[in-house]
Amino acid sequence: MKTNFNSLLYNKCKEKNNWLCLGLDIDPDFFNNSISDPIDFLEKFAFEIIDSTIDIVPVYKPNLAFFERYGYKGFKVFEKIVEYIDGRSIVIADAKRGDIGNTCKYYASAMFDEMGCDAITVNPYMGSDSILPFLKNKFKGVFVLCLTSNSSSGELQNDTNDNTPLFLKVAKLVGSLNKNGNLGLVVGATKSDFFDQINKYCNKMPYLIPGVGHQGGDLEESLISSNKNGYGIINVSRSIINSGKGNLKSIRSAALSYTEKIREVVNGRA
Amino acid sequence: MKTNFNSLLYNKCKEKNNWLCLGLDIDPDFFNNSISDPIDFLEKFAFEIIDSTIDIVPVYKPNLAFFERYGYKGFKVFEKIVEYIDGRSIVIADAKRGDIGNTCKYYASAMFDEMGCDAITVNPYMGSDSILPFLKNKFKGVFVLCLTSNSSSGELQNDTNDNTPLFLKVAKLVGSLNKNGNLGLVVGATKSDFFDQINKYCNKMPYLIPGVGHQGGDLEESLISSNKNGYGIINVSRSIINSGKGNLKSIRSAALSYTEKIREVVNGRA
Repeated sequence: MKTNFNSLLYNKCKEKNNWLCLGLDIDPDFFNNSISDPIDFLEKFAFEIIDSTIDIVPVYKPNLAFFERYGYKGFKVFEKIVEYIDGRSIVIADAKRGDIGNTCKYYASAMFDEMGCDAITVNPYMGSDSILPFLKNKFKGVFVLCLTSNSSSGELQNDTNDNTPLFLKVAKLVGSLNKNGNLGLVVGATKSDFFDQINKYCNKMPYLIPGVGHQGGDLEESLISSNKNGYGIINVSRSIINSGKGNLKSIRSAALSYTEKIREVVNGRA
Repeated sequence: MKTNFNSLLYNKCKEKNNWLCLGLDIDPDFFNNSISDPIDFLEKFAFEIIDSTIDIVPVYKPNLAFFERYGYKGFKVFEKIVEYIDGRSIVIADAKRGDIGNTCKYYASAMFDEMGCDAITVNPYMGSDSILPFLKNKFKGVFVLCLTSNSSSGELQNDTNDNTPLFLKVAKLVGSLNKNGNLGLVVGATKSDFFDQINKYCNKMPYLIPGVGHQGGDLEESLISSNKNGYGIINVSRSIINSGKGNLKSIRSAALSYTEKIREVVNGRA
């Protein structure tokens, strides 16, 4: 039953028996410094990665920075990728946008209506004004940064007041805003010790979990903790797309290896 | 002397005897619901606004959401606007980006190298990782969201720990990162009561101050408080560009009126 974004996401993951989000942070420089047309490379390689993995990958997360760096031509490639996926998997625009309401209205319109993405990542620093405009269409999803995986995340996010760190206030705020069933959280696998605390505030929500690959977060613990409440989607970017320096067999093999680990934890639990 | 972004910005404001930033949040729907080609309108109208005001306006701040809503074609217009300004005024990309370091590197490359903007607005929620990659080129500037002007800003930003609200921790963090003289803060005119507290942490920095127009913040108080330490740049968007429903004389007249108010406060003070 198609009730809202969070159930669409759940159904797509169930359908492919996988809870993997493949981050498309493609950096042409990594593969070959002498590529004559990096924008053309970006498009072709993204399509090839999708072709090699879409039967097993339920969610793709293109990262806007890796397209914007090439200006409007890069943005055009981003649009083509969303169009190419064409509903076969969920697309989360990793855009981390956030602004006053009047501006977010147009970011929502950009990512959902114009680009056709299914969901977006959003930064909560400006408060609920910066989240609400993205929630209006219940079939479009929003992942709010809560406890991110990077090393400096604690500088602000762990800030405590009466022993309540800021990231839990974000979790509480997000929990209170989830009227349409289309909100989730970004929580880093490197911080899985805190998932139980976050779970208390966010009922039945999907967690988008980066930090498993290069950053060394624990896949199993993250999945188990997030599945206690809602459901976890494990994001992997560079550890898959940079595998074998562009060799598509290596990429598929890396995606399959993560898929197997995920299935083992999730299905083992069931 | 061209030493870093903050002095470039200061010199440009001195040169035009104005501390006004004109926000280019152009919404074609506001002017005419039946525009056949809104992207063409956006480009032409932005150029006309610039022609009508560039002799008095030292800083323009195009807001990315208002371009991204039209996809890559909108992004192309954004690029053309930066090219059209061509160093005659400072361009701040109001993008509010923020991500892990490896991603911010490419947002910096997008806004500074590819688009040619002079500065960007950045969201601090992910900590210093999300600010540092933007600071490498000392001739490019970064305005970090500190205490924003919107109504829900306090939900997280006013969060206190031992009586220190989060926005002051952001101010402290930003103050400590300003090694290259290219960092500033976004502080809302609606919050000018707190500027003296922020001043303690941020030495000699420019403040980009929105919230004077529609949001009702106090121009005079904001300028006086911010000029005690570094210098304030007053941002006005809709109250100028929507003036007279697209009539360029009204737009210039609104820009002049703000300019006069600013000059009165700043030059009166000197």
